[in-house]
Amino acid sequence: MQQISGMGKLLIVGSVAFDDIETPFGKSDKILGGAGTFIGLAASQFKVQSSVVSVVGEDFPQSYLDIFTDHNIDISGIDVVKGGKTFYWKGKYHNDLNSRDTLITELNTMADFNPVVPDNFKDADVVMLGNLHPSIQLGVIDQMEKRPKLIIADTMNFWMNNTWDELMEVVKRIDVITINDEEARQMTNEYSLVKAAAKIQEIGPKYVVIKKGEHGALLFHEEHIFFAPALPLEEVFDPTGAGDTFAGGFAGHLAETKNISFESMKNAIIHGSNLASFCVERFGTERMLNLKRHEIDSRLLQFKELTQFNIELT
Amino acid sequence: MQQISGMGKLLIVGSVAFDDIETPFGKSDKILGGAGTFIGLAASQFKVQSSVVSVVGEDFPQSYLDIFTDHNIDISGIDVVKGGKTFYWKGKYHNDLNSRDTLITELNTMADFNPVVPDNFKDADVVMLGNLHPSIQLGVIDQMEKRPKLIIADTMNFWMNNTWDELMEVVKRIDVITINDEEARQMTNEYSLVKAAAKIQEIGPKYVVIKKGEHGALLFHEEHIFFAPALPLEEVFDPTGAGDTFAGGFAGHLAETKNISFESMKNAIIHGSNLASFCVERFGTERMLNLKRHEIDSRLLQFKELTQFNIELT
Repeated sequence: MQQISGMGKLLIVGSVAFDDIETPFGKSDKILGGAGTFIGLAASQFKVQSSVVSVVGEDFPQSYLDIFTDHNIDISGIDVVKGGKTFYWKGKYHNDLNSRDTLITELNTMADFNPVVPDNFKDADVVMLGNLHPSIQLGVIDQMEKRPKLIIADTMNFWMNNTWDELMEVVKRIDVITINDEEARQMTNEYSLVKAAAKIQEIGPKYVVIKKGEHGALLFHEEHIFFAPALPLEEVFDPTGAGDTFAGGFAGHLAETKNISFESMKNAIIHGSNLASFCVERFGTERMLNLKRHEIDSRLLQFKELTQFNIELT
Repeated sequence: MQQISGMGKLLIVGSVAFDDIETPFGKSDKILGGAGTFIGLAASQFKVQSSVVSVVGEDFPQSYLDIFTDHNIDISGIDVVKGGKTFYWKGKYHNDLNSRDTLITELNTMADFNPVVPDNFKDADVVMLGNLHPSIQLGVIDQMEKRPKLIIADTMNFWMNNTWDELMEVVKRIDVITINDEEARQMTNEYSLVKAAAKIQEIGPKYVVIKKGEHGALLFHEEHIFFAPALPLEEVFDPTGAGDTFAGGFAGHLAETKNISFESMKNAIIHGSNLASFCVERFGTERMLNLKRHEIDSRLLQFKELTQFNIELT
């Protein structure tokens, strides 16, 4: 991978997987998926040097690895385990696409995932920890040779239910947590998201991003709140990866600008929401692989039209 | 009521009622409620001449009528029925405040509501028809001596289920419909709100406002979409009247400016959302009665901070 001096470095840690998806609109085959994949592809839309740290099996095709390198994503941290099988998830979405049943989860090589941060990403500006066992997330933070400018971590209710203490260790050491609304409530025993975000900030992260799926995302920081809607779409085809694509756009923008002010994070939230709106239009990563700059810009304009108004206060 | 020449006239038709509310935070007594009440109080924050057309019983206290006149709302269209009883609704909210059970509905005088538009409001610029039997809504439209600049109507699933044909007559004759997300889906058999709004525009109204409660509101017009979030609050105390307060702010702004462009409607949506954020902070109309100009302006600033961003497209 070409090193460009001065360009922001983004380290991404997350699953690289096979997904097998059924929606009301059809069935995919066993296709490329995983949080690390979606985060990486979204972040590749920004001027950043990024690396995805993950693990796959010998069954993972070279053509999928090529997708990463074709998008300028360093794959020296993707461990290909001889004789191993790649993490496999099969799920079926309900008619409203807001809920899904997991039909099969085969952790395979992911069960023993022991991430090793590539040497030239130990000084990454931004670290994006995908939804993983908190001990793995901690292990990555410990490998950094200097404190990154920004550490972002995603998590989910499974880790709250099963690894609370380790999760709290992670939460204390990060700058931004991304979490969905129900999980924020569960973590804090507060129904109000304003109160929940305040409690999470007390534990550690100065920024709390609450994902509400089709209802958008909220960013909390001290007394500031910013909200971005999801772009209303005629059709949502497959929601898989939307949250990770959002996180990848968020992290990618911040790594590109190296500006972690609240104003910059607002823009990062919009960029993440914008990219997520594409992700859901096709199965898996399909839409993200064929995304053109002008499509992204055109939709950013739609986001402006959707949200910007002009009320003068007297 | 003082007539000020040139000031926009707003005709409001809706229930004026007794509400008896239980939330997780407490119980109200039998207090002032009703769509017409909440719409009128919200609209009174704007420089408009407004009139509420409704019906109450002899049990309706003068002090409640005085609330209307104190807010410069014409009450010559509120029929006080001798020996009659006022519409009474008793409801209990669930813990998340997003759903509620109706415990008692006594229509009383509302069962025979036959609205009579006051002569000096038959030329109103804006007509806001609260959620009522579609035949009543039609009867009001027929009483107007000239086509108002803008007719807005609210409705609900009850009328879809029981008076579909009459409702469609209303929908054909109005400019703006306000409806919640589930009802928009029910009306059109479309899950996507973008598609639902397009279908509703085909029936008649050029503007479709879809209310999503705590998830905000969408305005659709041709290919344009605007979205306003609900302001994230530390505490929601009582959601009763929030939707009507939203509608009242929306209608009030449009009647004040007499500008029904899409840009003006965007601002109307923000004004409506802003006022609704106050309504939910206390039982019933309590918060709306004590609302100060500087509080409204300060919260409009919060709405700007919540939603406005600055991404330059190259």
